[in-house]
Amino acid sequence: MGEQLVEISRLVTEAMEKANTAFTTADTELAQDVIASDARIDFLQNHLDERAIEILALQGPVASDLRVIVGSLRMSASLERMGDLARHIAQLTRMRYPELVIPEHLRPTFAQFAEHDIAISRSLTELLDTRNLDLARDINRHNEQVNELHAGIFKAIASPDFNAAPSTAVDVALASRYFERFADHGISVSRKVTYLVTGEWTTNGNVG
Amino acid sequence: MGEQLVEISRLVTEAMEKANTAFTTADTELAQDVIASDARIDFLQNHLDERAIEILALQGPVASDLRVIVGSLRMSASLERMGDLARHIAQLTRMRYPELVIPEHLRPTFAQFAEHDIAISRSLTELLDTRNLDLARDINRHNEQVNELHAGIFKAIASPDFNAAPSTAVDVALASRYFERFADHGISVSRKVTYLVTGEWTTNGNVG
Repeated sequence: MGEQLVEISRLVTEAMEKANTAFTTADTELAQDVIASDARIDFLQNHLDERAIEILALQGPVASDLRVIVGSLRMSASLERMGDLARHIAQLTRMRYPELVIPEHLRPTFAQFAEHDIAISRSLTELLDTRNLDLARDINRHNEQVNELHAGIFKAIASPDFNAAPSTAVDVALASRYFERFADHGISVSRKVTYLVTGEWTTNGNVG
Repeated sequence: MGEQLVEISRLVTEAMEKANTAFTTADTELAQDVIASDARIDFLQNHLDERAIEILALQGPVASDLRVIVGSLRMSASLERMGDLARHIAQLTRMRYPELVIPEHLRPTFAQFAEHDIAISRSLTELLDTRNLDLARDINRHNEQVNELHAGIFKAIASPDFNAAPSTAVDVALASRYFERFADHGISVSRKVTYLVTGEWTTNGNVG
């Protein structure tokens, strides 16, 4: 099942990379591609569930393996949600086409959001593959940056200088939330891997 | 584990009822109560996970039971998210205190949102308890209403008549999303119960 998680995580990374390119260039075809590809992630998650049931039924695993299997089910659910969030960004892109979703003065902030989210997703794929816990620490650092960016966006919207339409404010807030939730689910997976490797539950990072 | 799901679902209903009262009366103490109580839901979800592992380890269940156990893990995750969403509504209440979050002209819409969400949550508790699938149909109907309300809110914000501040628009949109996601996770649990009872996967209602 580890390999399947790595595969799902790789697809999630690809979805976020494409969603962000679509988002920043108002590329509606690429957005459509992300939306269509999300079904593949959902399919793989269901497949992993079925596989877990098979393993449990056929192999009668011992307690330590059970923890891995139950952990895998939780991780696959978080990864599936990350795929959904990339899809939401793509859907926002399509909804505002041919306009860009984000007003010009906030685009640098969103470029940073995307950079951190993609870094988290890439590190997560590698963490699931190698179990090198240095990657979990990198992921925590990126997540802290994402939380700061998210707080900054809400301050920017509340500021009297923010003079875009209310519906633009909503788009900005939702997009910010999607990027923040993506990182948060990444943390959730990263903590589960850490727990399975060390047996200790870390409390830094939010619960997803 | 069925009893534990019923118990979690009951706590989720209570959280949403209190969150909505706090939300509509700017009651910051009640909001704080909801925020604090969410830890209990999280604890029960973890406890259910542990119990699932124990059952798997000790009883070596057959394939049909495994489906129930894996289904329970998914359902407990959705219920836990519903608790988080009630908490988000409470947090929004606290953040805007002493103001109410929702501008006057949209309050009737949000009263309907809350009514449907609470009805979903109550029916879900009963569905988990009795497996009476009529309740699943009720839940679907309420969810359709919630989706219409959610679409209406986004139209209202985009309308030229909407003359509140951008940050108010954002609050309204986020609150709308919280109510909509709550219902959507309810559908997700309801579909899993239906699947476990009938063996057939229903496709009405969104995937959560």
